[in-house]
Amino acid sequence: MEHVSASPSHGGIQGVYTHQSDATGTPMTFSVFVPAHSPGTKLPVVWYLSGLTCTHANVTDKGEYRRLCSELGLIFVAPDTSPRGEDVPDDPEGAYDFGLGAGFYVDATRRPFSPNYRMRTYLTNELPALLAEHFPVDLTRQAIMGHSMGGHGALTIALRNPDRFRSVSAFAPIVAPSQVPWGRKAFRGYLGDDEQAWRRYDTIALIKDGLRVQDILVDQGDADGFLAEQLKPDLLVKACADANIPLTFRMHRHYDHSYFFVSTFMEDHLRWHAERLG
Amino acid sequence: MEHVSASPSHGGIQGVYTHQSDATGTPMTFSVFVPAHSPGTKLPVVWYLSGLTCTHANVTDKGEYRRLCSELGLIFVAPDTSPRGEDVPDDPEGAYDFGLGAGFYVDATRRPFSPNYRMRTYLTNELPALLAEHFPVDLTRQAIMGHSMGGHGALTIALRNPDRFRSVSAFAPIVAPSQVPWGRKAFRGYLGDDEQAWRRYDTIALIKDGLRVQDILVDQGDADGFLAEQLKPDLLVKACADANIPLTFRMHRHYDHSYFFVSTFMEDHLRWHAERLG
Repeated sequence: MEHVSASPSHGGIQGVYTHQSDATGTPMTFSVFVPAHSPGTKLPVVWYLSGLTCTHANVTDKGEYRRLCSELGLIFVAPDTSPRGEDVPDDPEGAYDFGLGAGFYVDATRRPFSPNYRMRTYLTNELPALLAEHFPVDLTRQAIMGHSMGGHGALTIALRNPDRFRSVSAFAPIVAPSQVPWGRKAFRGYLGDDEQAWRRYDTIALIKDGLRVQDILVDQGDADGFLAEQLKPDLLVKACADANIPLTFRMHRHYDHSYFFVSTFMEDHLRWHAERLG
Repeated sequence: MEHVSASPSHGGIQGVYTHQSDATGTPMTFSVFVPAHSPGTKLPVVWYLSGLTCTHANVTDKGEYRRLCSELGLIFVAPDTSPRGEDVPDDPEGAYDFGLGAGFYVDATRRPFSPNYRMRTYLTNELPALLAEHFPVDLTRQAIMGHSMGGHGALTIALRNPDRFRSVSAFAPIVAPSQVPWGRKAFRGYLGDDEQAWRRYDTIALIKDGLRVQDILVDQGDADGFLAEQLKPDLLVKACADANIPLTFRMHRHYDHSYFFVSTFMEDHLRWHAERLG
Protein backbone atom coordinates (compact mmCIF):
# COMPACT_ATOMS: atom_id res chain seq x y z
CA MET A 1 0.00 0.00 0.00
CA GLU A 2 1.35 3.39 -0.96
CA HIS A 3 0.74 6.61 0.83
CA VAL A 4 -0.47 9.36 -1.54
CA SER A 5 -1.08 12.08 1.03
CA ALA A 6 -1.88 12.62 4.69
CA SER A 7 -3.24 15.87 6.11
CA PRO A 8 -4.21 16.64 9.67
CA SER A 9 -7.83 17.72 9.82
CA HIS A 10 -10.31 18.18 12.66
CA GLY A 11 -7.84 16.57 15.04
CA GLY A 12 -7.36 13.40 12.98
CA ILE A 13 -5.54 12.44 9.80
CA GLN A 14 -7.13 12.47 6.36
CA GLY A 15 -5.10 10.10 4.22
CA VAL A 16 -5.24 8.96 0.61
CA TYR A 17 -3.70 5.61 -0.34
CA THR A 18 -3.15 3.51 -3.42
CA HIS A 19 -2.48 -0.19 -3.83
CA GLN A 20 -2.38 -2.87 -6.49
CA SER A 21 -5.68 -4.73 -6.29
CA ASP A 22 -5.90 -8.46 -6.90
CA ALA A 23 -9.65 -8.20 -7.37
CA THR A 24 -9.55 -5.64 -10.18
CA GLY A 25 -6.04 -6.20 -11.50
CA THR A 26 -5.46 -2.44 -11.37
CA PRO A 27 -4.12 0.11 -8.91
CA MET A 28 -6.96 1.32 -6.67
CA THR A 29 -7.06 4.56 -4.69
CA PHE A 30 -9.09 5.20 -1.54
CA SER A 31 -9.21 7.67 1.33
CA VAL A 32 -9.30 6.98 5.06
CA PHE A 33 -9.94 9.43 7.88
CA VAL A 34 -8.64 8.30 11.25
CA PRO A 35 -9.63 10.45 14.24
CA ALA A 36 -7.31 11.02 17.17
CA HIS A 37 -7.34 7.95 19.42
CA SER A 38 -5.34 6.31 22.18
CA PRO A 39 -2.55 4.02 20.98
CA GLY A 40 -3.75 0.44 20.72
CA THR A 41 -7.45 1.37 20.48
CA LYS A 42 -9.45 -0.04 17.61
CA LEU A 43 -12.19 2.12 16.19
CA PRO A 44 -15.47 1.36 14.42
CA VAL A 45 -15.45 2.01 10.69
CA VAL A 46 -17.97 3.63 8.34
CA TRP A 47 -17.77 2.76 4.65
CA TYR A 48 -18.95 5.43 2.25
CA LEU A 49 -19.69 4.41 -1.36
CA SER A 50 -19.85 7.21 -3.90
CA GLY A 51 -22.08 7.85 -6.87
CA LEU A 52 -21.65 7.90 -10.64
CA THR A 53 -18.60 9.82 -11.96
CA CYS A 54 -17.08 10.10 -8.47
CA THR A 55 -13.75 8.95 -7.11
CA HIS A 56 -12.76 8.84 -3.42
CA ALA A 57 -12.10 12.58 -3.72
CA ASN A 58 -15.67 13.91 -3.97
CA VAL A 59 -16.79 12.98 -0.49
CA THR A 60 -13.30 13.54 0.89
CA ASP A 61 -13.43 17.16 -0.29
CA LYS A 62 -17.12 17.93 0.08
CA GLY A 63 -18.64 15.46 2.54
CA GLU A 64 -18.09 17.44 5.77
CA TYR A 65 -17.70 14.23 7.78
CA ARG A 66 -14.39 14.80 9.58
CA ARG A 67 -15.66 16.98 12.44
CA LEU A 68 -18.27 14.38 13.31
CA CYS A 69 -15.99 11.38 12.87
CA SER A 70 -13.59 13.03 15.31
CA GLU A 71 -16.37 13.68 17.80
CA LEU A 72 -17.82 10.17 17.48
CA GLY A 73 -14.56 8.24 17.11
CA LEU A 74 -15.30 6.79 13.67
CA ILE A 75 -12.90 5.79 10.91
CA PHE A 76 -14.31 6.84 7.52
CA VAL A 77 -13.32 4.96 4.36
CA ALA A 78 -14.12 6.19 0.85
CA PRO A 79 -13.20 3.78 -1.99
CA ASP A 80 -13.24 4.56 -5.69
CA THR A 81 -16.29 3.69 -7.83
CA SER A 82 -14.56 1.53 -10.45
CA PRO A 83 -11.21 0.21 -11.61
CA ARG A 84 -9.26 2.78 -13.63
CA GLY A 85 -6.45 2.80 -16.17
CA GLU A 86 -5.83 3.05 -19.88
CA ASP A 87 -6.23 -0.72 -20.29
CA VAL A 88 -9.51 -0.88 -18.37
CA PRO A 89 -12.50 -1.23 -20.71
CA ASP A 90 -14.84 1.75 -20.67
CA ASP A 91 -18.23 2.60 -22.12
CA PRO A 92 -17.75 2.46 -25.91
CA GLU A 93 -19.26 5.93 -26.22
CA GLY A 94 -17.59 7.31 -23.10
CA ALA A 95 -20.90 7.76 -21.28
CA TYR A 96 -20.74 8.84 -17.63
CA ASP A 97 -23.09 6.10 -16.45
CA PHE A 98 -21.18 2.99 -17.47
CA GLY A 99 -17.53 1.90 -17.30
CA LEU A 100 -15.00 4.14 -15.60
CA GLY A 101 -16.52 5.84 -12.58
CA ALA A 102 -19.62 3.68 -12.84
CA GLY A 103 -18.77 0.21 -11.55
CA PHE A 104 -22.14 -0.22 -9.81
CA TYR A 105 -20.44 -2.27 -7.08
CA VAL A 106 -20.93 -5.59 -8.88
CA ASP A 107 -18.60 -8.38 -9.97
CA ALA A 108 -18.92 -8.23 -13.75
CA THR A 109 -19.38 -11.59 -15.47
CA ARG A 110 -19.44 -10.35 -19.03
CA ARG A 111 -16.47 -9.62 -21.29
CA PRO A 112 -14.65 -7.30 -21.67
CA PHE A 113 -15.59 -6.04 -18.19
CA SER A 114 -15.30 -9.27 -16.23
CA PRO A 115 -11.60 -9.29 -15.51
CA ASN A 116 -11.39 -5.75 -14.06
CA TYR A 117 -14.86 -4.78 -12.86
CA ARG A 118 -14.91 -6.86 -9.68
CA MET A 119 -15.89 -4.11 -7.29
CA ARG A 120 -18.01 -6.35 -5.03
CA THR A 121 -15.10 -8.68 -4.29
CA TYR A 122 -12.81 -5.70 -3.94
CA LEU A 123 -15.06 -4.01 -1.38
CA THR A 124 -16.20 -7.00 0.63
CA ASN A 125 -13.00 -9.07 0.68
CA GLU A 126 -9.86 -7.32 -0.41
CA LEU A 127 -10.21 -3.80 0.99
CA PRO A 128 -11.41 -4.82 4.49
CA ALA A 129 -8.35 -7.07 4.84
CA LEU A 130 -6.04 -4.30 3.69
CA LEU A 131 -7.66 -1.87 6.12
CA ALA A 132 -7.31 -4.27 9.02
CA GLU A 133 -3.63 -4.62 8.23
CA HIS A 134 -2.83 -0.90 8.09
CA PHE A 135 -5.40 0.96 10.20
CA PRO A 136 -6.78 0.64 13.73
CA VAL A 137 -10.18 -0.67 12.57
CA ASP A 138 -12.46 -2.87 14.64
CA LEU A 139 -14.01 -5.08 11.96
CA THR A 140 -16.66 -6.26 14.42
CA ARG A 141 -18.07 -2.73 14.29
CA GLN A 142 -18.74 -1.74 10.67
CA ALA A 143 -21.36 0.50 9.11
CA ILE A 144 -22.00 1.26 5.45
CA MET A 145 -23.55 4.19 3.65
CA GLY A 146 -23.55 5.68 0.17
CA HIS A 147 -24.89 8.22 -2.26
CA SER A 148 -26.94 7.46 -5.38
CA MET A 149 -25.15 4.51 -7.09
CA GLY A 150 -23.24 4.23 -3.79
CA GLY A 151 -26.54 4.04 -1.91
CA HIS A 152 -27.38 1.05 -4.10
CA GLY A 153 -23.98 -0.41 -3.22
CA ALA A 154 -24.42 0.18 0.51
CA LEU A 155 -27.94 -1.25 0.69
CA THR A 156 -27.16 -4.40 -1.31
CA ILE A 157 -23.90 -5.06 0.55
CA ALA A 158 -25.63 -4.59 3.92
CA LEU A 159 -28.50 -6.88 2.95
CA ARG A 160 -26.12 -9.60 1.81
CA ASN A 161 -23.81 -9.25 4.82
CA PRO A 162 -26.13 -8.67 7.79
CA ASP A 163 -23.61 -10.14 10.24
CA ARG A 164 -20.87 -7.82 9.11
CA PHE A 165 -22.62 -4.44 9.11
CA ARG A 166 -24.40 -3.14 12.16
CA SER A 167 -26.05 -0.30 10.28
CA VAL A 168 -26.79 1.03 6.82
CA SER A 169 -27.95 4.34 5.40
CA ALA A 170 -28.12 6.14 2.07
CA PHE A 171 -28.47 9.51 0.41
CA ALA A 172 -30.71 9.46 -2.67
CA PRO A 173 -30.02 5.79 -3.43
CA ILE A 174 -30.78 3.86 -6.59
CA VAL A 175 -32.99 1.23 -4.95
CA ALA A 176 -34.19 -0.78 -7.95
CA PRO A 177 -31.43 -0.82 -10.58
CA SER A 178 -33.18 -3.63 -12.47
CA GLN A 179 -36.13 -1.31 -13.07
CA VAL A 180 -34.44 1.97 -14.06
CA PRO A 181 -32.36 3.11 -17.08
CA TRP A 182 -29.04 3.59 -15.21
CA GLY A 183 -29.21 0.16 -13.62
CA ARG A 184 -30.54 -1.73 -16.61
CA LYS A 185 -27.76 -0.38 -18.82
CA ALA A 186 -25.12 -1.22 -16.23
CA PHE A 187 -26.42 -4.69 -15.38
CA ARG A 188 -26.85 -5.65 -19.02
CA GLY A 189 -23.28 -4.54 -19.67
CA TYR A 190 -21.65 -6.07 -16.61
CA LEU A 191 -23.90 -9.10 -16.01
CA GLY A 192 -25.58 -9.91 -19.33
CA ASP A 193 -29.20 -10.22 -20.38
CA ASP A 194 -30.38 -12.80 -17.84
CA GLU A 195 -32.27 -10.65 -15.36
CA GLN A 196 -32.26 -13.43 -12.77
CA ALA A 197 -28.55 -12.74 -12.35
CA TRP A 198 -29.33 -9.12 -11.51
CA ARG A 199 -31.39 -9.92 -8.40
CA ARG A 200 -28.43 -10.27 -6.06
CA TYR A 201 -27.49 -6.68 -6.86
CA ASP A 202 -30.95 -5.13 -6.54
CA THR A 203 -32.15 -3.87 -3.16
CA ILE A 204 -35.84 -4.36 -3.89
CA ALA A 205 -35.28 -7.87 -5.29
CA LEU A 206 -33.10 -8.85 -2.32
CA ILE A 207 -35.76 -7.72 0.15
CA LYS A 208 -38.43 -9.59 -1.82
CA ASP A 209 -36.16 -12.65 -1.75
CA GLY A 210 -36.13 -12.51 2.05
CA LEU A 211 -32.90 -10.70 2.93
CA ARG A 212 -33.13 -8.35 5.90
CA VAL A 213 -31.30 -5.61 7.81
CA GLN A 214 -32.15 -4.26 11.23
CA ASP A 215 -33.22 -0.84 9.96
CA ILE A 216 -32.41 1.73 7.26
CA LEU A 217 -32.02 5.52 7.12
CA VAL A 218 -32.58 7.21 3.75
CA ASP A 219 -32.54 10.94 2.94
CA GLN A 220 -33.81 12.25 -0.37
CA GLY A 221 -34.28 15.69 -1.89
CA ASP A 222 -37.55 16.40 -3.65
CA ALA A 223 -35.81 18.63 -6.23
CA ASP A 224 -33.41 15.82 -7.17
CA GLY A 225 -33.44 15.65 -10.98
CA PHE A 226 -33.05 11.85 -10.90
CA LEU A 227 -35.83 11.17 -8.43
CA ALA A 228 -38.67 9.98 -10.63
CA GLU A 229 -36.75 8.16 -13.36
CA GLN A 230 -33.73 6.62 -11.62
CA LEU A 231 -34.17 6.60 -7.84
CA LYS A 232 -37.83 5.70 -7.15
CA PRO A 233 -37.63 5.65 -3.35
CA ASP A 234 -41.34 4.77 -3.17
CA LEU A 235 -40.31 1.24 -4.21
CA LEU A 236 -38.09 1.04 -1.13
CA VAL A 237 -40.77 2.44 1.13
CA LYS A 238 -43.19 -0.23 -0.07
CA ALA A 239 -40.67 -3.08 0.03
CA CYS A 240 -39.63 -2.20 3.60
CA ALA A 241 -43.24 -1.90 4.70
CA ASP A 242 -44.09 -5.29 3.17
CA ALA A 243 -41.02 -6.87 4.79
CA ASN A 244 -41.36 -5.15 8.17
CA ILE A 245 -37.94 -3.51 7.86
CA PRO A 246 -37.99 -0.26 9.86
CA LEU A 247 -37.17 2.45 7.34
CA THR A 248 -36.60 6.07 8.30
CA PHE A 249 -37.26 7.83 5.01
CA ARG A 250 -37.01 11.61 4.93
CA MET A 251 -37.99 13.67 1.90
CA HIS A 252 -36.42 17.13 2.03
CA ARG A 253 -38.08 20.03 0.28
CA HIS A 254 -36.03 21.80 -2.42
CA TYR A 255 -32.87 19.71 -1.93
CA ASP A 256 -31.10 18.36 -5.02
CA HIS A 257 -28.73 15.45 -5.77
CA SER A 258 -25.46 17.27 -5.00
CA TYR A 259 -22.97 17.29 -2.14
CA PHE A 260 -24.69 20.43 -0.87
CA PHE A 261 -27.48 17.97 0.00
CA VAL A 262 -25.24 15.12 1.19
CA SER A 263 -23.13 17.34 3.46
CA THR A 264 -26.26 18.83 5.04
CA PHE A 265 -27.46 15.46 6.35
CA MET A 266 -24.07 13.78 6.86
CA GLU A 267 -24.22 14.56 10.58
CA ASP A 268 -27.53 12.74 11.02
CA HIS A 269 -26.19 9.69 9.22
CA LEU A 270 -22.97 9.52 11.22
CA ARG A 271 -24.90 9.85 14.48
CA TRP A 272 -27.26 7.09 13.29
CA HIS A 273 -24.29 4.82 12.64
CA ALA A 274 -22.45 5.75 15.84
CA GLU A 275 -25.50 4.81 17.93
CA ARG A 276 -25.66 1.39 16.30
CA LEU A 277 -21.90 0.80 16.37
CA GLY A 278 -21.81 1.29 20.13
CA MET B 1 -26.24 39.66 -12.44
CA GLU B 2 -26.74 36.13 -13.68
CA HIS B 3 -27.62 33.13 -11.62
CA VAL B 4 -25.24 30.21 -12.29
CA SER B 5 -26.61 27.79 -9.69
CA ALA B 6 -28.47 27.67 -6.39
CA SER B 7 -28.54 24.66 -4.10
CA PRO B 8 -30.22 24.31 -0.74
CA SER B 9 -27.66 23.38 1.90
CA HIS B 10 -27.71 23.32 5.69
CA GLY B 11 -31.07 25.08 5.64
CA GLY B 12 -29.93 28.00 3.47
CA ILE B 13 -29.14 28.55 -0.20
CA GLN B 14 -25.66 28.22 -1.69
CA GLY B 15 -25.65 30.26 -4.87
CA VAL B 16 -23.10 31.03 -7.57
CA TYR B 17 -23.48 34.18 -9.64
CA THR B 18 -21.76 35.92 -12.50
CA HIS B 19 -21.86 39.54 -13.64
CA GLN B 20 -20.05 41.91 -15.98
CA SER B 21 -17.64 43.90 -13.83
CA ASP B 22 -16.93 47.57 -14.52
CA ALA B 23 -13.82 47.41 -12.35
CA THR B 24 -12.14 44.56 -14.20
CA GLY B 25 -13.84 44.85 -17.59
CA THR B 26 -14.52 41.10 -17.48
CA PRO B 27 -17.26 38.76 -16.29
CA MET B 28 -16.68 37.92 -12.61
CA THR B 29 -18.04 34.90 -10.74
CA PHE B 30 -18.65 34.69 -6.99
CA SER B 31 -20.57 32.53 -4.53
CA VAL B 32 -22.95 33.62 -1.77
CA PHE B 33 -24.45 31.51 0.98
CA VAL B 34 -27.62 32.94 2.50
CA PRO B 35 -28.96 31.16 5.58
CA ALA B 36 -32.67 30.81 6.27
CA HIS B 37 -34.03 34.09 7.62
CA SER B 38 -37.28 35.95 8.17
CA PRO B 39 -38.48 37.98 5.19
CA GLY B 40 -37.27 41.56 5.41
CA THR B 41 -34.40 40.76 7.79
CA LYS B 42 -30.93 41.93 6.85
CA LEU B 43 -28.01 39.75 7.86
CA PRO B 44 -24.37 40.45 8.65
CA VAL B 45 -21.92 39.40 5.95
CA VAL B 46 -18.55 37.65 6.06
CA TRP B 47 -16.22 38.12 3.10
CA TYR B 48 -13.83 35.25 2.39
CA LEU B 49 -10.85 35.92 0.11
CA SER B 50 -9.14 32.87 -1.36
CA GLY B 51 -5.52 32.00 -2.00
CA LEU B 52 -3.34 31.55 -5.08
CA THR B 53 -4.81 29.37 -7.87
CA CYS B 54 -8.28 29.41 -6.27
CA THR B 55 -11.63 30.55 -7.61
CA HIS B 56 -14.80 31.02 -5.55
CA ALA B 57 -15.25 27.24 -5.82
CA ASN B 58 -12.49 26.04 -3.49
CA VAL B 59 -13.92 27.37 -0.25
CA THR B 60 -17.47 26.82 -1.51
CA ASP B 61 -16.74 23.11 -1.91
CA LYS B 62 -14.26 22.52 0.90
CA GLY B 63 -14.66 25.30 3.47
CA GLU B 64 -17.31 23.65 5.70
CA TYR B 65 -18.80 27.03 6.58
CA ARG B 66 -22.48 26.53 5.78
CA ARG B 67 -23.54 24.72 8.97
CA LEU B 68 -22.06 27.52 11.07
CA CYS B 69 -23.35 30.34 8.91
CA SER B 70 -26.83 28.86 9.28
CA GLU B 71 -26.43 28.59 13.04
CA LEU B 72 -25.00 32.11 13.39
CA GLY B 73 -27.11 33.86 10.75
CA LEU B 74 -24.21 34.95 8.54
CA ILE B 75 -24.13 35.57 4.82
CA PHE B 76 -20.86 34.22 3.36
CA VAL B 77 -19.42 35.71 0.17
CA ALA B 78 -16.54 34.15 -1.78
CA PRO B 79 -15.24 36.21 -4.73
CA ASP B 80 -12.77 35.04 -7.37
CA THR B 81 -9.05 35.82 -7.01
CA SER B 82 -8.50 37.61 -10.34
CA PRO B 83 -10.18 38.65 -13.55
CA ARG B 84 -10.40 35.82 -16.08
CA GLY B 85 -10.80 35.42 -19.81
CA GLU B 86 -8.80 34.76 -22.94
CA ASP B 87 -8.09 38.47 -23.38
CA VAL B 88 -6.91 38.97 -19.78
CA PRO B 89 -3.11 39.19 -19.57
CA ASP B 90 -1.51 36.32 -17.67
CA ASP B 91 1.94 35.46 -16.39
CA PRO B 92 4.12 35.19 -19.53
CA GLU B 93 5.31 31.77 -18.38
CA GLY B 94 1.94 30.66 -17.06
CA ALA B 95 3.17 30.53 -13.45
CA TYR B 96 0.59 29.84 -10.75
CA ASP B 97 1.65 32.77 -8.59
CA PHE B 98 1.03 35.69 -10.95
CA GLY B 99 -1.75 36.64 -13.36
CA LEU B 100 -4.87 34.48 -13.58
CA GLY B 101 -5.81 33.16 -10.14
CA ALA B 102 -3.24 35.42 -8.50
CA GLY B 103 -4.57 38.97 -8.48
CA PHE B 104 -3.22 39.72 -4.99
CA TYR B 105 -6.22 41.98 -4.32
CA VAL B 106 -4.53 45.11 -5.68
CA ASP B 107 -5.42 47.66 -8.33
CA ALA B 108 -2.68 47.13 -10.89
CA THR B 109 -1.07 50.32 -12.22
CA ARG B 110 1.29 48.70 -14.67
CA ARG B 111 0.55 47.62 -18.25
CA PRO B 112 -0.63 45.19 -19.49
CA PHE B 113 -2.29 44.34 -16.15
CA SER B 114 -3.70 47.74 -15.24
CA PRO B 115 -6.93 47.68 -17.19
CA ASN B 116 -8.21 44.33 -15.87
CA TYR B 117 -6.45 43.63 -12.58
CA ARG B 118 -8.42 46.04 -10.41
CA MET B 119 -9.40 43.60 -7.70
CA ARG B 120 -9.22 46.17 -4.87
CA THR B 121 -11.80 48.43 -6.50
CA TYR B 122 -13.85 45.40 -7.45
CA LEU B 123 -13.95 44.10 -3.88
CA THR B 124 -14.31 47.32 -1.95
CA ASN B 125 -16.65 49.25 -4.27
CA GLU B 126 -18.35 47.26 -6.97
CA LEU B 127 -19.15 43.94 -5.33
CA PRO B 128 -20.54 45.38 -2.06
CA ALA B 129 -22.97 47.54 -4.06
CA LEU B 130 -24.04 44.56 -6.16
CA LEU B 131 -24.54 42.46 -3.03
CA ALA B 132 -26.64 45.13 -1.38
CA GLU B 133 -28.84 45.25 -4.44
CA HIS B 134 -29.49 41.51 -4.68
CA PHE B 135 -29.05 39.98 -1.22
CA PRO B 136 -30.36 40.74 2.29
CA VAL B 137 -27.00 42.05 3.55
CA ASP B 138 -26.60 44.55 6.37
CA LEU B 139 -23.57 46.54 5.17
CA THR B 140 -23.18 48.08 8.64
CA ARG B 141 -22.17 44.61 9.84
CA GLN B 142 -19.32 43.27 7.73
CA ALA B 143 -16.41 40.98 8.55
CA ILE B 144 -13.54 39.87 6.34
CA MET B 145 -11.30 36.82 6.35
CA GLY B 146 -9.04 34.98 3.95
CA HIS B 147 -6.53 32.24 3.31
CA SER B 148 -2.89 32.76 2.29
CA MET B 149 -2.98 35.42 -0.48
CA GLY B 150 -6.57 35.99 0.66
CA GLY B 151 -5.36 36.51 4.22
CA HIS B 152 -3.16 39.28 2.84
CA GLY B 153 -6.21 40.69 1.08
CA ALA B 154 -8.40 40.51 4.19
CA LEU B 155 -5.84 42.10 6.51
CA THR B 156 -4.97 44.98 4.19
CA ILE B 157 -8.60 45.70 3.31
CA ALA B 158 -9.58 45.65 7.01
CA LEU B 159 -6.70 47.95 7.96
CA ARG B 160 -7.61 50.44 5.24
CA ASN B 161 -11.35 50.31 5.96
CA PRO B 162 -11.62 50.17 9.77
CA ASP B 163 -15.07 51.76 9.75
CA ARG B 164 -16.45 49.24 7.34
CA PHE B 165 -15.27 45.96 8.86
CA ARG B 166 -16.04 45.06 12.44
CA SER B 167 -13.66 42.10 12.44
CA VAL B 168 -10.86 40.43 10.52
CA SER B 169 -9.19 37.03 10.59
CA ALA B 170 -6.91 34.91 8.43
CA PHE B 171 -5.68 31.39 7.81
CA ALA B 172 -1.95 31.20 7.02
CA PRO B 173 -1.83 34.76 5.60
CA ILE B 174 0.92 36.37 3.57
CA VAL B 175 1.60 39.25 5.97
CA ALA B 176 4.55 40.98 4.34
CA PRO B 177 4.25 40.63 0.56
CA SER B 178 6.93 43.29 0.03
CA GLN B 179 9.42 41.05 1.78
CA VAL B 180 8.70 37.61 0.27
CA PRO B 181 9.10 36.08 -3.21
CA TRP B 182 5.37 35.65 -3.99
CA GLY B 183 4.57 39.23 -3.06
CA ARG B 184 7.64 40.85 -4.60
CA LYS B 185 6.97 39.16 -7.93
CA ALA B 186 3.29 40.16 -7.85
CA PHE B 187 3.85 43.76 -6.73
CA ARG B 188 6.63 44.34 -9.23
CA GLY B 189 4.35 43.03 -11.98
CA TYR B 190 1.17 44.81 -10.96
CA LEU B 191 2.56 47.98 -9.36
CA GLY B 192 6.05 48.51 -10.77
CA ASP B 193 9.45 48.86 -9.15
CA ASP B 194 8.74 51.75 -6.77
CA GLU B 195 8.41 49.94 -3.44
CA GLN B 196 6.79 52.97 -1.83
CA ALA B 197 3.71 52.18 -3.94
CA TRP B 198 3.62 48.70 -2.40
CA ARG B 199 3.11 49.89 1.18
CA ARG B 200 -0.64 50.35 0.90
CA TYR B 201 -0.94 46.67 0.06
CA ASP B 202 1.37 45.32 2.76
CA THR B 203 -0.03 44.47 6.20
CA ILE B 204 3.22 45.04 8.05
CA ALA B 205 3.87 48.35 6.29
CA LEU B 206 0.31 49.55 6.92
CA ILE B 207 0.60 48.80 10.64
CA LYS B 208 3.97 50.57 10.75
CA ASP B 209 2.34 53.51 8.97
CA GLY B 210 -0.22 53.77 11.76
CA LEU B 211 -3.26 51.93 10.46
CA ARG B 212 -5.16 49.92 13.06
CA VAL B 213 -7.89 47.34 13.55
CA GLN B 214 -9.60 46.38 16.79
CA ASP B 215 -8.10 42.88 16.92
CA ILE B 216 -7.00 40.02 14.66
CA LEU B 217 -7.34 36.22 14.70
CA VAL B 218 -4.75 34.21 12.76
CA ASP B 219 -4.40 30.42 12.53
CA GLN B 220 -1.29 28.82 11.07
CA GLY B 221 -0.07 25.24 10.61
CA ASP B 222 3.51 24.49 11.56
CA ALA B 223 3.83 21.93 8.74
CA ASP B 224 2.79 24.52 6.15
CA GLY B 225 5.35 24.30 3.36
CA PHE B 226 5.16 28.07 2.74
CA LEU B 227 5.61 29.10 6.35
CA ALA B 228 9.24 30.18 6.46
CA GLU B 229 9.69 31.62 2.98
CA GLN B 230 6.35 33.23 2.10
CA LEU B 231 4.17 33.65 5.18
CA LYS B 232 6.46 34.77 8.04
CA PRO B 233 3.80 35.21 10.71
CA ASP B 234 6.48 36.26 13.20
CA LEU B 235 6.54 39.61 11.39
CA LEU B 236 2.85 40.05 12.15
CA VAL B 237 3.28 39.02 15.77
CA LYS B 238 6.00 41.65 16.20
CA ALA B 239 4.15 44.39 14.30
CA CYS B 240 0.97 43.84 16.34
CA ALA B 241 2.92 43.81 19.60
CA ASP B 242 4.71 47.05 18.67
CA ALA B 243 1.40 48.67 17.66
CA ASN B 244 -0.66 47.32 20.56
CA ILE B 245 -3.06 45.52 18.23
CA PRO B 246 -4.49 42.51 20.09
CA LEU B 247 -3.54 39.50 17.96
CA THR B 248 -4.73 35.98 18.68
CA PHE B 249 -2.12 33.91 16.87
CA ARG B 250 -2.42 30.15 17.05
CA MET B 251 0.26 27.81 15.68
CA HIS B 252 -1.15 24.32 15.10
CA ARG B 253 1.14 21.31 15.22
CA HIS B 254 1.36 19.20 12.04
CA TYR B 255 -1.25 21.20 10.08
CA ASP B 256 -0.45 22.13 6.47
CA HIS B 257 -1.62 24.85 4.03
CA SER B 258 -4.64 22.98 2.62
CA TYR B 259 -8.39 23.17 3.08
CA PHE B 260 -8.08 20.25 5.50
CA PHE B 261 -6.49 22.91 7.73
CA VAL B 262 -8.84 25.77 6.82
CA SER B 263 -12.00 23.71 7.34
CA THR B 264 -10.78 22.53 10.75
CA PHE B 265 -10.63 26.06 12.15
CA MET B 266 -13.42 27.64 10.09
CA GLU B 267 -15.82 27.27 13.03
CA ASP B 268 -13.58 29.27 15.37
CA HIS B 269 -13.25 32.07 12.80
CA LEU B 270 -16.96 32.30 12.12
CA ARG B 271 -17.72 32.41 15.86
CA TRP B 272 -15.07 35.11 16.25
CA HIS B 273 -16.75 37.18 13.56
CA ALA B 274 -20.30 36.51 14.80
CA GLU B 275 -19.36 37.80 18.27
CA ARG B 276 -18.04 41.03 16.81
CA LEU B 277 -20.86 41.47 14.30
CA GLY B 278 -23.45 41.37 17.08
